[in-house]
Amino acid sequence: MADTAPKSFPAPLARCLGELEKLQGIGHKSALRILYGLLARGPEAFNSLAESLQAVPLLVERCPECRAFREAGQPCPLCQDERRDRSALCVVESASDLSLIEATGEFRGLYHVLGGLLSPSKGVRPEDLGLDELPARLKARAVTEVILATPPTAEGEATASYVASLISAPGVRVSRIGFGIPVGSDLQYSDSQTLSRALTGRRDYR
Amino acid sequence: MADTAPKSFPAPLARCLGELEKLQGIGHKSALRILYGLLARGPEAFNSLAESLQAVPLLVERCPECRAFREAGQPCPLCQDERRDRSALCVVESASDLSLIEATGEFRGLYHVLGGLLSPSKGVRPEDLGLDELPARLKARAVTEVILATPPTAEGEATASYVASLISAPGVRVSRIGFGIPVGSDLQYSDSQTLSRALTGRRDYR
Repeated sequence: MADTAPKSFPAPLARCLGELEKLQGIGHKSALRILYGLLARGPEAFNSLAESLQAVPLLVERCPECRAFREAGQPCPLCQDERRDRSALCVVESASDLSLIEATGEFRGLYHVLGGLLSPSKGVRPEDLGLDELPARLKARAVTEVILATPPTAEGEATASYVASLISAPGVRVSRIGFGIPVGSDLQYSDSQTLSRALTGRRDYR
Repeated sequence: MADTAPKSFPAPLARCLGELEKLQGIGHKSALRILYGLLARGPEAFNSLAESLQAVPLLVERCPECRAFREAGQPCPLCQDERRDRSALCVVESASDLSLIEATGEFRGLYHVLGGLLSPSKGVRPEDLGLDELPARLKARAVTEVILATPPTAEGEATASYVASLISAPGVRVSRIGFGIPVGSDLQYSDSQTLSRALTGRRDYR
């Protein structure tokens, strides 16, 4: 099938198809399948999806402190949760990475969601990632450990390095998440850079 | 990751995630990826997708004759196209199947889009598929060939058989699309029912 809307397609369907094709991970065929699925379900399917989409920009905002998403006007469920460990702060690239870390259950501290990575070429500066306010926040919250959980890419490493440089207070531990062979995987399938990180990041066994 | 919205998710995001998960072929992880992709693109991404979705039930309708989708109030681009062959009519399950047939360029006649398949157990009756009006339409259009292009499933075959039974006029050819080994495939990969259809559907080679 050609990668354009079928010729007999009414304009509103073609426009909707184009919007669906912009979604992350959705190509032409998936967008067509989604559209025909909605058509088969009827008008209500279009309307309820549209309403749930429109509600997001109206009812969701970033917490001004940790920059994670919260219901507009409501207390942040992370920053305001008294049961969380306020001495540890984890720096992540995105709300999506925050969710992945929450799902492990290994971390019960606070977060700083960058919403991107430093990139001079893309014009992303420290203040775009809320990093101008981070030192004051660490001091106010009396944070004693900052975990750098940005990805092991060039931009992720540069961002981690920049965040580390902001933290000068004595007694604040700065750590980086571990990189190496994925659990359940085989050394055979790892590239040499990953294996190299696994070796430099080795830990005492006993 | 658990197959529910992350715990710290604001309710409007969780609702939107739930709607995205209802889409054809979209599971929990794809829905999350789509949602985070939209969040990264900002409010405009949510609104333009929502608007294009809401336009569909308002601006698209089924042609009362062929039952394909057309712009509301506009002439049907298939039924009203004078260049199409009005003596041939192809019966398809869905608008999606119609698009696939159009994309081959092999058929330039008219269509009847069933919008489903006969199924007593699901309560789908002939009149739900526009089949009560089909004989009059064939007569009015002086159709001389009806191609049954429903899928080779139990319901598809039952529907094809029912449509064939409606066509009693002498001089109207009723044909069924061919089933057999997919082009470029190998007999090794075909199941025995497909191979059986390929044998019974054999054609003279010279």
